[in-house]
Amino acid sequence: MTIVYIAIACGVLAVLYGLVTSQQVLRAPAGDQKMQDIAAAIQEGAKAYLGRQYTAIAIVGAVVAVVLFLTLGGLSTAAFLLGAVLSGVAGYVGMHISVRANVRTAEAARSSLQGGLTLAFRSGAITGMLVAGLGLLSISLLFWYLVGPAGGEPDGEEVIKALTALAFGASLISIFARLGGGIFTKAADVGADLVGKVEAGIPEDDPRNPAVIADNVGDNVGDCAGMAADLFETYVVTIGLTMVSIALLVTGTSDQLLRLMALPLIVGGVCIITSIIGTYMVRLGSGQSIMGALYKGFWTTAILAVPAIYLATGYALGDLNAVIGGAADATNTDVAASVARQAVGEGFTGMDLFWCMMIGLGVTGLLVWITEYYTGTQYRPVRSIAKASETGHGTNVIQGLAISLESTAMPTIVIVVAVIASYQLAGIIGVAFAATSLLALAGMVVALDAYGPVTDNAGGIAEMAGLPDDVRTRTDALDAVGNTTKAVTKGYAIGSAALAALVLFGAYTEDLKRYATELGLTPKADGTVVDFSLSNPYVIVGLLLGALLPYLFGAFGMTAVGRAAGAVVEDVRAQFRENPGIMQGTSRPAYGRTVDIVTRAAIKEMIVPSLLPVLSPIVLFFVMRAVAGTEAAFASVGAMLLGVIVSGLFVAISMTSGGGAWDNAKKYIEDGNHGGKGSEAHKAAVTGDTVGDPYKDTAGPAVNPMIKITNIVALLLLAALASTGG
Amino acid sequence: MTIVYIAIACGVLAVLYGLVTSQQVLRAPAGDQKMQDIAAAIQEGAKAYLGRQYTAIAIVGAVVAVVLFLTLGGLSTAAFLLGAVLSGVAGYVGMHISVRANVRTAEAARSSLQGGLTLAFRSGAITGMLVAGLGLLSISLLFWYLVGPAGGEPDGEEVIKALTALAFGASLISIFARLGGGIFTKAADVGADLVGKVEAGIPEDDPRNPAVIADNVGDNVGDCAGMAADLFETYVVTIGLTMVSIALLVTGTSDQLLRLMALPLIVGGVCIITSIIGTYMVRLGSGQSIMGALYKGFWTTAILAVPAIYLATGYALGDLNAVIGGAADATNTDVAASVARQAVGEGFTGMDLFWCMMIGLGVTGLLVWITEYYTGTQYRPVRSIAKASETGHGTNVIQGLAISLESTAMPTIVIVVAVIASYQLAGIIGVAFAATSLLALAGMVVALDAYGPVTDNAGGIAEMAGLPDDVRTRTDALDAVGNTTKAVTKGYAIGSAALAALVLFGAYTEDLKRYATELGLTPKADGTVVDFSLSNPYVIVGLLLGALLPYLFGAFGMTAVGRAAGAVVEDVRAQFRENPGIMQGTSRPAYGRTVDIVTRAAIKEMIVPSLLPVLSPIVLFFVMRAVAGTEAAFASVGAMLLGVIVSGLFVAISMTSGGGAWDNAKKYIEDGNHGGKGSEAHKAAVTGDTVGDPYKDTAGPAVNPMIKITNIVALLLLAALASTGG
Repeated sequence: MTIVYIAIACGVLAVLYGLVTSQQVLRAPAGDQKMQDIAAAIQEGAKAYLGRQYTAIAIVGAVVAVVLFLTLGGLSTAAFLLGAVLSGVAGYVGMHISVRANVRTAEAARSSLQGGLTLAFRSGAITGMLVAGLGLLSISLLFWYLVGPAGGEPDGEEVIKALTALAFGASLISIFARLGGGIFTKAADVGADLVGKVEAGIPEDDPRNPAVIADNVGDNVGDCAGMAADLFETYVVTIGLTMVSIALLVTGTSDQLLRLMALPLIVGGVCIITSIIGTYMVRLGSGQSIMGALYKGFWTTAILAVPAIYLATGYALGDLNAVIGGAADATNTDVAASVARQAVGEGFTGMDLFWCMMIGLGVTGLLVWITEYYTGTQYRPVRSIAKASETGHGTNVIQGLAISLESTAMPTIVIVVAVIASYQLAGIIGVAFAATSLLALAGMVVALDAYGPVTDNAGGIAEMAGLPDDVRTRTDALDAVGNTTKAVTKGYAIGSAALAALVLFGAYTEDLKRYATELGLTPKADGTVVDFSLSNPYVIVGLLLGALLPYLFGAFGMTAVGRAAGAVVEDVRAQFRENPGIMQGTSRPAYGRTVDIVTRAAIKEMIVPSLLPVLSPIVLFFVMRAVAGTEAAFASVGAMLLGVIVSGLFVAISMTSGGGAWDNAKKYIEDGNHGGKGSEAHKAAVTGDTVGDPYKDTAGPAVNPMIKITNIVALLLLAALASTGG
Repeated sequence: MTIVYIAIACGVLAVLYGLVTSQQVLRAPAGDQKMQDIAAAIQEGAKAYLGRQYTAIAIVGAVVAVVLFLTLGGLSTAAFLLGAVLSGVAGYVGMHISVRANVRTAEAARSSLQGGLTLAFRSGAITGMLVAGLGLLSISLLFWYLVGPAGGEPDGEEVIKALTALAFGASLISIFARLGGGIFTKAADVGADLVGKVEAGIPEDDPRNPAVIADNVGDNVGDCAGMAADLFETYVVTIGLTMVSIALLVTGTSDQLLRLMALPLIVGGVCIITSIIGTYMVRLGSGQSIMGALYKGFWTTAILAVPAIYLATGYALGDLNAVIGGAADATNTDVAASVARQAVGEGFTGMDLFWCMMIGLGVTGLLVWITEYYTGTQYRPVRSIAKASETGHGTNVIQGLAISLESTAMPTIVIVVAVIASYQLAGIIGVAFAATSLLALAGMVVALDAYGPVTDNAGGIAEMAGLPDDVRTRTDALDAVGNTTKAVTKGYAIGSAALAALVLFGAYTEDLKRYATELGLTPKADGTVVDFSLSNPYVIVGLLLGALLPYLFGAFGMTAVGRAAGAVVEDVRAQFRENPGIMQGTSRPAYGRTVDIVTRAAIKEMIVPSLLPVLSPIVLFFVMRAVAGTEAAFASVGAMLLGVIVSGLFVAISMTSGGGAWDNAKKYIEDGNHGGKGSEAHKAAVTGDTVGDPYKDTAGPAVNPMIKITNIVALLLLAALASTGG
């Protein structure tokens, strides 16, 4: 139990870091009155949006909670609510700091680049540590309660159900937050650009544009709050489901299981400490490279994680070379094929798990590098898009799409190699631990990402408040690397989803066996209860329908942005018409009105697509059960879970990398290449950037929580069917 | 054996139809000297391109033939060469007629719309009947030889190997032809537009543009020859592999098997007859609706197919209610799950198969209808793209991408329902027969498609030869429906691929069992030799890598078009520079030089992506065998086969439907909506059309042969490994 206490202590430490650093950030000077007025408008808009968004989600959440209470009981419902509330808190607090750090970053950038960097990054680090800290606390405290005061066994049914419900709570919030925030931010961005840059011919962030505040609000509610909720979800699902799969798959004494299940928690804990150390390493070197400064922090965290994880594993498991768990399914040909079977069947050592976690760290590093290659201005992909812009809008988009398709290859190969290697070391449990160590670095990765919207806002405020040009130059430089770090987080989240998919599917099959009698399934000769072979046409049906989900979801997301942006365009046109003083600069536009319109549009548009992954497995199950019987229904639902990742991985990576590449191709041209700002190539690049916007900030990133939701709903459906007798 | 003779007779009939109709087309007046000169240039360019393309393919084919000869022996090699040569012939003859019908269509359109329609459609029908006729002849003759003169059993090893090798020959040619032709046509099209419309400000098909002949050549080598090779392949693979799966899965007397295996042949045969009848129904009604006229032909064919298939089934099988085949794997839980298991295990009746074929016809009708919905100017999708064009290039592309993602939903659901229903009727064999009847209509579907490039060329010739405006109006009207019929064929081909995938995978698993000893695999307790369960991580690895292939292939295709179009732009710019008389209209551009450049670029660019699906399963097998053992290697290769369809279905449909929608959104605006030609909305729509070009004509359609190749290579790899002792 001491291991769990250490994890709780590390979670508390992360929250304390957040509180202390918040004080530092808020103590920094907030600029002159004009800057503060602008910041206040952004704060007000962001607060109003999140308030309404959470109200809408709360209604859905309440309905779900009632269903859970009736089917799974009070404890699971409480865990669900814990996950949901903390996911909301992580997003809300992140936004709260972000909308205050923006103006302070602009003010600090008046004097130096380092000043701006420090402030913006600290603000990001607060969000990062809160995501990891609250995530770790929620699982650790729940686990502590379940096996401590509640007196459950580590692999007891209540533990499994409650951890799954916790993950569901986090996921449900995050899909709404990711999608709602994503629609808001891109509708405001695209709408503001269309009517401002294109129609009125005024520059970006011009205070005469009534949508300019909405655009800045969007950065905070989408890229900060939405992203934080998403990564909170990823953290909780990955670590929580690693524990669940240990409970389901590994046999051992109660103490052995407790130690093994607490290992992901303590690994998360020590990596919070290395992340905190990493944040202090973010400092400009002599080359004044901002990316270099951020990388110093990241690499410090990752490298320190190696000994930290080694020590944590040793502490939790004792002798690293002793075989610590025989798999429950040693005789089960289902999870165990070829060479790797031995590893699961005969158990694994602490060293095996340590190496799996090193694989996870390696995957993180490689994904960061690959993302930078595909979205950085110094490499072939972005430059090829910039070059293609010379021949027009069409060729820019063609090349961008080609790059977005291509960008899926290397991450897929990295993930495939990681799956094979970690499976050979320790079976499904090995894969789960690789995913766990990947996520253990979440605090630092989120910090790098949450830094982006702060600098983006700082640039907007500098422009609107009419600060000197050199301030805007500094904030632009800070902002440019934000495009890459934002893309990194998304690749990281979806990469972890691919690893987690195998673990989630493992949990699904084990659950089926566990509840076989209640579900009316007859075990076959080989111990399995459902035929998941690719020769089973119901499996193919599930794979195809699962693969459809990210496409349909992407279509909804893209259309929603288009419609909501249209509403913005109409409002801004109306404001220009009703009040000619706006364009002359003599009267202030009604910023709040536009924010309000985007708010309503985003919330309306997020509901249906968010419910798609929640309802799909349920509908598929009941339709297939009616058509082809219970076993076929479970087979197709199971296959749907893998279909959604098999296609979602590619949809998400191509959208997020492609979008980032388009964005930076525009920036590359604005830096004076291929004719620079105002050239025909630049216009073509602006088109590409507009296309990339909903790709990378709305549809693409929301695929990650979508995949998780589908999986978790399926797990809960099983539990609900079992407890209600099918 | 009479059944096979009937099929052969129907094949001969189709070829005769082609010969007779060719004479009719060639007898039509070919216009004035100027028109004939232009047509001659197109003919020359197309012939030169195909000549070089086939030379390049012949080299690859010769290497493959040697490998096949050494591993599988002479008979399979001969079958491979038969498939390859006939695929080439179908494409070549189609192109040969098409480049002669174009100018005659322009001439006929001088007097009436009906005249132009008749000529263009007859030309398309020649290609259509040749594709179906030669396809049917190749399989029927090979089968006749194998079970007749060669004295083999219908389910003998030689029959299976030879039919698979025949399919491989057809597939190998078709991927090169589809991709090479696709790159040629779109590089010429995009290049001509960029430098003509955008830079020089001259209209489409202006004779001063040196790339204009290349553009017209492209229609013939891509949309006609490439498409014909693709559909020939689809026909041969689907019908051939249906026969192979009967041989592998069904037990019965030699006579029973012979009848059952000949059923797909006679079904193909009678549908050739209904297709020929259908071609005579293509006539304008009082509403002068061209699409209506084409649909009359299609629906006649489809409706007549119902009784024709019924009679053919009765003739081939005798009593339609007798159980005619017990599945060889009745005790095999692998292919047999839940309710449907009974259907396979206990055999099926002729009526079951008849209903499966009705499902296939239903799928064809629904896919046609869905494609028209997504690409027709009178429905929401195209109109939403046209509307989005008002706010600029970016929103046009965003909406187009949203539609392309969305367009995958309905076809997927149709296919899923078809799989479930036909599987419940007659197991895997039922799915195979659904695919067979889908393909049986290929003659008519190809006729509708091959009509498109003829009218497209006719319009170009009318423009270049300076024919009166009303001629161009007529050819434009004929051309407009070509966008939809082209999209229909692609959706149809990929839809059949999804059904065929299950059949191909069934063949793969049966082959594994058959060759288990030679391959060094140990049968498990349940009779299977390889674990294809989704719980096996090597299956997930295979699914992910398979899913990657269409993405990577798409990226290659899009990039190739961009690069080749760049070469066109440079050449045209050089010609304008070197010879200022061209723009003044005083001297003739060097059309041949541009054709030559595109030819070389297209052939160079097609090699690497075409080899991707050929080599991927082989490389994966050997890498996985080295890393994780033989069983894991076969598991991951098998999963790759399904991964490639699970992602390829979506990539292909989204690209082909999305591209068609973009194209027709532009046409809709050109018809005077949203500001009409020359408006800002029109410019945005031109961008969308340019983006859609490589989507719908290069990358998207080539995914279909790519999927087949991957599958067939895997089957041949098995046979080769077995005969060389692993």
